[in-house]
Amino acid sequence: MTAFDSKEYLDKVDAFWRAANFISVGQLYLKDNPLLQRSIEETDVKLHPIGHWGTISGQNFIYAHLNRVINKYDLNMFYVEGPGHGGQVMVSNSYLDGSYTEIYPEITEDLEGLTKLYKQFSFPGGVASHAAPETPGSIHEGGELGYSLSHATGAIFDNPEVIAATVVGDGEAETGPLAAGWFSNVFINPVTDGAVLPILYLNGGKISNPTILDRKSNEELTQYFGGMGWEPLFVEGTEPEAVHPIMAQVLDTAVEKIKAIQTEARKGSAAEAKMPAWPVIIFRTPKGWTGPKTWDGEPIEGGFRAHQVPIPVDAHHMEHIDALVDWMQSYRPEELFTADGQLVAELKEMAPKGDRRMATNPITNGGIDPKPLVIPDWKQYAVDTTVPGAVIAQDMIEFGNFARDLIVDNPDNFRIFGPDETKSNRLNKVFEVTNRVWMEAIDPAYDEWLSPSGRVIDSQLSEHQAEGFLEGYVLTGRHGFFASYEAFLRVVDSMITQHFKWLRKAKEQTWRKHYPSLNLIATSTVFQQDHNGYTHQDPGLLTHLAEKKPEFIREYLPADANSLMAVMAETMASEEQINLIVSSKHPRPQFYSAEEAEVLVKDGLKVIDWASTCRDEEPDVVIAAAGTEPNLEALAAVTILHKQFPTLKIRFINIVDLLKLRHPDVDPRGLSDEAFDAYFTADKPIVFAFHGFEGLIRDIFFDRHNHNLHIHGYRENGDITTPFDMRVLSEMDRFHLAQDAANAVYGEEAAVFSQRMTETVDFHHRFIRENGDDIPEVMEWKWEALEGAAAAKELIANKAD
Amino acid sequence: MTAFDSKEYLDKVDAFWRAANFISVGQLYLKDNPLLQRSIEETDVKLHPIGHWGTISGQNFIYAHLNRVINKYDLNMFYVEGPGHGGQVMVSNSYLDGSYTEIYPEITEDLEGLTKLYKQFSFPGGVASHAAPETPGSIHEGGELGYSLSHATGAIFDNPEVIAATVVGDGEAETGPLAAGWFSNVFINPVTDGAVLPILYLNGGKISNPTILDRKSNEELTQYFGGMGWEPLFVEGTEPEAVHPIMAQVLDTAVEKIKAIQTEARKGSAAEAKMPAWPVIIFRTPKGWTGPKTWDGEPIEGGFRAHQVPIPVDAHHMEHIDALVDWMQSYRPEELFTADGQLVAELKEMAPKGDRRMATNPITNGGIDPKPLVIPDWKQYAVDTTVPGAVIAQDMIEFGNFARDLIVDNPDNFRIFGPDETKSNRLNKVFEVTNRVWMEAIDPAYDEWLSPSGRVIDSQLSEHQAEGFLEGYVLTGRHGFFASYEAFLRVVDSMITQHFKWLRKAKEQTWRKHYPSLNLIATSTVFQQDHNGYTHQDPGLLTHLAEKKPEFIREYLPADANSLMAVMAETMASEEQINLIVSSKHPRPQFYSAEEAEVLVKDGLKVIDWASTCRDEEPDVVIAAAGTEPNLEALAAVTILHKQFPTLKIRFINIVDLLKLRHPDVDPRGLSDEAFDAYFTADKPIVFAFHGFEGLIRDIFFDRHNHNLHIHGYRENGDITTPFDMRVLSEMDRFHLAQDAANAVYGEEAAVFSQRMTETVDFHHRFIRENGDDIPEVMEWKWEALEGAAAAKELIANKAD
Ligand SMILES: Cc1ncc(C[n+]2csc(CCOP(=O)(O)OP(=O)(O)O)c2C)c(N)n1
Ligand SMILES: Cc1ncc(C[n+]2csc(CCOP(=O)(O)OP(=O)(O)O)c2C)c(N)n1
Ligand SMILES: [Mg+2]
Ligand SMILES: [Mg+2]
Repeated sequence: MTAFDSKEYLDKVDAFWRAANFISVGQLYLKDNPLLQRSIEETDVKLHPIGHWGTISGQNFIYAHLNRVINKYDLNMFYVEGPGHGGQVMVSNSYLDGSYTEIYPEITEDLEGLTKLYKQFSFPGGVASHAAPETPGSIHEGGELGYSLSHATGAIFDNPEVIAATVVGDGEAETGPLAAGWFSNVFINPVTDGAVLPILYLNGGKISNPTILDRKSNEELTQYFGGMGWEPLFVEGTEPEAVHPIMAQVLDTAVEKIKAIQTEARKGSAAEAKMPAWPVIIFRTPKGWTGPKTWDGEPIEGGFRAHQVPIPVDAHHMEHIDALVDWMQSYRPEELFTADGQLVAELKEMAPKGDRRMATNPITNGGIDPKPLVIPDWKQYAVDTTVPGAVIAQDMIEFGNFARDLIVDNPDNFRIFGPDETKSNRLNKVFEVTNRVWMEAIDPAYDEWLSPSGRVIDSQLSEHQAEGFLEGYVLTGRHGFFASYEAFLRVVDSMITQHFKWLRKAKEQTWRKHYPSLNLIATSTVFQQDHNGYTHQDPGLLTHLAEKKPEFIREYLPADANSLMAVMAETMASEEQINLIVSSKHPRPQFYSAEEAEVLVKDGLKVIDWASTCRDEEPDVVIAAAGTEPNLEALAAVTILHKQFPTLKIRFINIVDLLKLRHPDVDPRGLSDEAFDAYFTADKPIVFAFHGFEGLIRDIFFDRHNHNLHIHGYRENGDITTPFDMRVLSEMDRFHLAQDAANAVYGEEAAVFSQRMTETVDFHHRFIRENGDDIPEVMEWKWEALEGAAAAKELIANKAD
Repeated sequence: MTAFDSKEYLDKVDAFWRAANFISVGQLYLKDNPLLQRSIEETDVKLHPIGHWGTISGQNFIYAHLNRVINKYDLNMFYVEGPGHGGQVMVSNSYLDGSYTEIYPEITEDLEGLTKLYKQFSFPGGVASHAAPETPGSIHEGGELGYSLSHATGAIFDNPEVIAATVVGDGEAETGPLAAGWFSNVFINPVTDGAVLPILYLNGGKISNPTILDRKSNEELTQYFGGMGWEPLFVEGTEPEAVHPIMAQVLDTAVEKIKAIQTEARKGSAAEAKMPAWPVIIFRTPKGWTGPKTWDGEPIEGGFRAHQVPIPVDAHHMEHIDALVDWMQSYRPEELFTADGQLVAELKEMAPKGDRRMATNPITNGGIDPKPLVIPDWKQYAVDTTVPGAVIAQDMIEFGNFARDLIVDNPDNFRIFGPDETKSNRLNKVFEVTNRVWMEAIDPAYDEWLSPSGRVIDSQLSEHQAEGFLEGYVLTGRHGFFASYEAFLRVVDSMITQHFKWLRKAKEQTWRKHYPSLNLIATSTVFQQDHNGYTHQDPGLLTHLAEKKPEFIREYLPADANSLMAVMAETMASEEQINLIVSSKHPRPQFYSAEEAEVLVKDGLKVIDWASTCRDEEPDVVIAAAGTEPNLEALAAVTILHKQFPTLKIRFINIVDLLKLRHPDVDPRGLSDEAFDAYFTADKPIVFAFHGFEGLIRDIFFDRHNHNLHIHGYRENGDITTPFDMRVLSEMDRFHLAQDAANAVYGEEAAVFSQRMTETVDFHHRFIRENGDDIPEVMEWKWEALEGAAAAKELIANKAD
């Protein structure tokens, strides 16, 4: 049996650490002579040493000790690198445990391989200086700081055997998302979930400042973490020799605590579990530890000055090369590597084996035993639309049926996330079969649908946490969606960007497995946020995501419940995408049959025959709509126009998959010019009712023939007002749409009609200010079959069969 | 002397509270019969009661007690309503203290006024159900939750006499921004700043969940806050009678502690101040306090069910009207209001007087004694550009001279904010005259430029805090900017949106004073983030802000130091705007003279004669550039093209004020069609080198005549690579630009040249992977006067004089 606690073993841990440090510094500065076996030349040194030193050696220390406890306790553990900018940490350790060479066979375990390893780091065509998708073992990049805890927590949900060793930068700990991330412990069930072991890396420095938590006393830190329900364990020191045994002992304690918590909890059921005091390790060692102590009379080790490249040496500046060599030699490479560049056997042996290596833990590459989602046939929940518009329903409530059965059919790999909004967003039906996770005390008199074992996670008011959890969950092979108020999804704009960037770069790695898509449901949308007012009105995520690489992005604007469910069936089965689904939650007339909904999703858009007054002929005007209220208003505009101008040839198009409208030059999925013109004509007026900002539609149409375009989108005119007035404020209402269409087709001849529309809007304006309710014409409006439009009539007749 | 602590006085506080509660409920439900003086009819009740009850009465309680301490201690205090969705709180209290009627004279202090007050609430054309710009005394809306502490802190910086009483929702406290907001105490100097008195409102409920902090014990809360350096004081209870004296006593304690801290600290200098333990009040009372206890067998008071409209009564549903009447009568309105609808005199007297009323504290309306910024003449720092491109300088360093003098000239109303990046963003020169604020311990051996009295606030790694502080600072009449890595400004996308929404709505209020602009410097930009890689590359804020109302948004893309300084002089003097300034921080050639820079800012763009090969004639091609690297590459493309095609007539345009390019239909400031065509021609090819995503330029050009447009923007292709390769990846480099221009003008005839460009790019690709450095042609490139271009030559000659 190995004596893991012996001085000898810890000496080998130290050696392993030194090896990681040595090659980490090598990656920073060198491109040849990797073990300094000969005296150093200009040509051995990089032109542009780029990267971060400050976070490296402390993290290498942690990594070496995590290897030790993995061996000692046979742990299923992986590594989350909060300060991802220490890219060498995971690269070096993966190289030392052999996994790097398995994944990248050209980086061999010899001098040549080492040389390549050095050269590629932060080099054109090489590897990033962050814990990026190309880094073995990483599910978290740490480019944009703040999400390590939410990612780690998302990953260990429903992975009861796994421990996420999560290094949190002390700078990172000052960000909002990370500060809120400590509350993750309210959602981790010790029976069915794994554990997060946070290691707060108090190295005292950021880019050029000290850190707030570093200047707190241990008593204050104990209070801070204790107050949030964590049990802090301290590791401190500057002398490696002294810190090794402390670290070993504290890590043992932490692991044993985790195991004890789980063992105890697992005697009972998940539903009865109590919130434990999980350990958090406070690791207080100097920034840039073991690096140059001072430079130019200023201290490096121990403060922010160690953050990046600590001493100024490059191929053109060799004056201080001795300092670099001394530093590197201080790790005594000759003890660590053989002459031909291999890690010496007794150190090699120190690394965990096979999938116990953190770099190859399957959770970090597509997940442990990932399963496709079982998706029930959504058509069993379809809403009846035999008479279009006759049934009034709430799309999110109807979708709730589907979501509920997703929960039932996927009991351990599907979850719903949200910031305290699942009920407000009308997903109540899921609570017929599950609850929300909540590990704090539950007060049955006051609380609703809470349990330690719920499948919904929405009891923290934090979009950052909901988004971060879902990211961690899907990056580890599971499925879910995050439903949010549309406007407040923008709180996580940049997180979504970073997830997209991850997907994109991960796809370039042939060894990386696929991920289920990240599904974002934006509800409580702009045109129905009449009651919460202007702050709650922002559909701009559509534009934001449209700027990313098209293959990874879908934007769906289902106009009713059937369309929504068809979209959800599609998106929940998809991979490698970010799907934005914009959905209504308020009572709305239901228009599209299940069959229509399927075509809408498959083709992205559809000419709606029963809402058009012409069929195969060229229309006089195209009325297009994307979004629930746009669709409703555009259909109402069709009825108004048809009554007034019975011979007007209207083609009505509903659009669900918005980005399909883009030109193939911009988006490979985009409609060809021919197909586009077949829908929209080459020059007939198009009145386009749109859920989002108008610039996106101008952008989309720029490359198209038809520029005879009249967009009615959200014009950033909002208020507390009536539902219909919200649309009027942006002129995205039936009257303005009809007016615009008539003017476009008939010009002056439509003057009387146009005037009537203006007057109706004026009447509306006065009426609602008096009555607080919308005008009867709007309240009582119902879709009527288009009398006189032969083709359409016929179709309706067919439908009614 | 008033016996503020007597039972009698507290009874009157209670009565004032009841009055606020009564009219708050009235606003929710009623539109007539405001004091229930006659029996209630359907016509008295609103059709759509909309709003939030849960947060109201607790906040009214706090407000009434704050009035008491204002009176007792003659405090300069204002109110920040974290859960802003309790819109009635500030409206009701402002109405009761008379300020509402002063500001809105039509809302008189009588039955008619009360009726109007009720009716307008959450009603079309009325007032929002949030603490919105139309709400007296508000500088914080609380629509998007999380920013109350950062706003409050920003407001009290350099306002030593003011206390910001800041109610934090317990749900709000779960958001990332708020959780990071507690660290604000590291930046508040007790000598020169005012105080924030946070009141954590532990009402136990969110929308449909309990709250995390509510389920913590007082011991845990004491630890949590103590750990962060705050001193928690508890107020708890359910019986008003019992809670009044506790609240009075605790508020007294809090105020006295604040005063003691300040008095003590002010004996010394700001630079010597120590971080005190500021008080925080933990106010634990039931959500929906004093409202209906239960409904339909479920508890209302005390949990999430009290969140919105607690009992279902409206004009069409009068079944339960008695419950509403009982509830309202429980406040005993007859004791509170006279028969003609006035607050009884002895309660009226309870409110603070004049500007001591929180609703009219000048800090909440443009600030206490706001002063325009003293702006030195930036031309004294101008870089010499006699020979364009000859001088290499770092724009942010040069601008640092200007920023330094802004600090000197405006010692108490100008600040710089950032997330640990002021040095990285090269503003070092400001540290010649000031430091960064830091109230924690300072370790002179390791720390740099820290002091309790610095004018820069960048020692917390949080974009949310930097943005929130600046918002609070400018909304209270002071000046500043927030300099950030471009990509991570997106962390606060939604905060910027909310600030814009505030500006827009505030401008509609004639009584609101103007605000200095919010200035955002995006640096470490996409095309120079070659070393940090892909996660750090996102110029999309340009598109994001372009979606807002044009009058409030400016987007500047200065291409060099002089342009940057001209822009900063303009933006720092501006009001009511959000100015996005995208600036380079790396060494770059300097091109534009101070005179050119001024024209660029004044007109927004400029034909650069010395970089054009034709003058008054119609060009063959227009080369346009917006942004530093686009400008550099486009100029290099001009030199390449000119050498190859000496007769090619090139017009070069630099664009600084991007949104000026928009059509006047979209943006009132936009160039007229004539002006636009005069710059860009109606149909000649335009090669447009752009800093941002290309969709924004397509959007901008949609309404223009000239669609012969070749955009080269950021194509979401990033990596760790060489500086020049970053541009090549998006084809935003000189070779692709020149190729595109030649092909557009000469078609097939440019084939050989085009091929050469392709080969050069290929050579570049191989070269950098071998050498890690850009190709000599690029490294050594210098602007050369355009020989043979008569007009240009002449101009250069003039310049050299
Ligand atoms: C959201 C965000 N803001 C700013 C940055 C820029 N940045 C990169 S590293 C760093 C300091 C990190 O300090 P810390 O978390 O303590 O990590 P250390 O290097 O000390 O391990 C900053 C501010 C970033 N990466 N992400
Ligand atoms: C960033 C953000 N996310 C979600 C919401 C939706 N929302 C409105 S009120 C609320 C609950 C607020 O609870 P709390 O802060 O405790 O306020 P209380 O009403 O209890 O005073 C939520 C989640 C929001 N306004 N802002
Ligand atoms: Mg640090
Ligand atoms: Mg609450």
